[in-house]
Amino acid sequence: MNRIISISREYGSAGRTIGQKLAEKLGINCYDSSLLDKIAEKTGFDKKYIKENGEYTSSGSWMLSALAGRDYNGHSIQDEIWNVQRETIIEIAEKESCVIVGRNADYVLKDKQDVLRVFITASSKARLNRVINEYHEDHGDAAKYLRMMDKRRRAYCQLYTDIHWGDAKYYDICMDSSVFGVDKCVEVLASLY
Amino acid sequence: MNRIISISREYGSAGRTIGQKLAEKLGINCYDSSLLDKIAEKTGFDKKYIKENGEYTSSGSWMLSALAGRDYNGHSIQDEIWNVQRETIIEIAEKESCVIVGRNADYVLKDKQDVLRVFITASSKARLNRVINEYHEDHGDAAKYLRMMDKRRRAYCQLYTDIHWGDAKYYDICMDSSVFGVDKCVEVLASLY
Repeated sequence: MNRIISISREYGSAGRTIGQKLAEKLGINCYDSSLLDKIAEKTGFDKKYIKENGEYTSSGSWMLSALAGRDYNGHSIQDEIWNVQRETIIEIAEKESCVIVGRNADYVLKDKQDVLRVFITASSKARLNRVINEYHEDHGDAAKYLRMMDKRRRAYCQLYTDIHWGDAKYYDICMDSSVFGVDKCVEVLASLY
Repeated sequence: MNRIISISREYGSAGRTIGQKLAEKLGINCYDSSLLDKIAEKTGFDKKYIKENGEYTSSGSWMLSALAGRDYNGHSIQDEIWNVQRETIIEIAEKESCVIVGRNADYVLKDKQDVLRVFITASSKARLNRVINEYHEDHGDAAKYLRMMDKRRRAYCQLYTDIHWGDAKYYDICMDSSVFGVDKCVEVLASLY
């Protein structure tokens, strides 16, 4: 049976880097950007649009997003992306063992036995440092931006899943990458796979 | 410098067992029941009373507990226990490296550098099984009892700390003992110490 590692993470917590290094160590694929390519291909939407709308609500409020942009049948473009994203994750999980970063893969694969559900956190200082120095993103008030990105991810999670984003109860293991460092996190997760 | 491991946990998640085995493996003391002895001695209250009132609110509501049992100076017996408990934890942490189970030691020692903050979860099934077969506790509806105990711990935490009980953000590592087993949790935590 294919064994999947899902990695959910706070914005700027190095969850993606941990996912990539972990996949490399285990000799399996890491779906992150490549997952977006697949979804973009299926929906016809631009990759950047998918990136935004498949993991973030447009505001920090799940309720506003629940109400926004619905057609006469009650569907929104965000729902369509959620559905394709969900199908794509299930297809990948049926095909191969792999790491999937973000996109609520933990929830999508909740009925699958062999999934290691990971959540990565980091201190605000480490996250700010990563956003500014590694992502080279300039959003004015970076701390405010971080809070908003987390809020939008949490709201998206609340809108489409019954997982409380970041609540330890919903994951097999949660680690603070700023305490242990990326390599130690990778080592521990590989030992648990 | 003394190095402390604080273990917070869901009721019935084997957090205490993990703490004891971890301390044994590392050759340090585990403060759980022995912490209660110290606090009982200092306050003159019965150990069972301390156990209840030093980690649980009387109801599942932090607000009711915040209002209940206050004298003319606004203090409650629960506040007194909190204060002595806090002092005792700080004294122990200054004296020796150790494991401290529960009692919000993570919050009490939040300004201390060398603390590994752990939170242990487990599936409802595993927790129910432990409460019934290992603790031999008979509370009628065990599932309801578990929910209430968690609710009372969360409310206590909300009343006295600024930690969101069980939110991965507030801990260095969170592990589900029903996924990995007690021994694997101990092994991972020992490797991170």
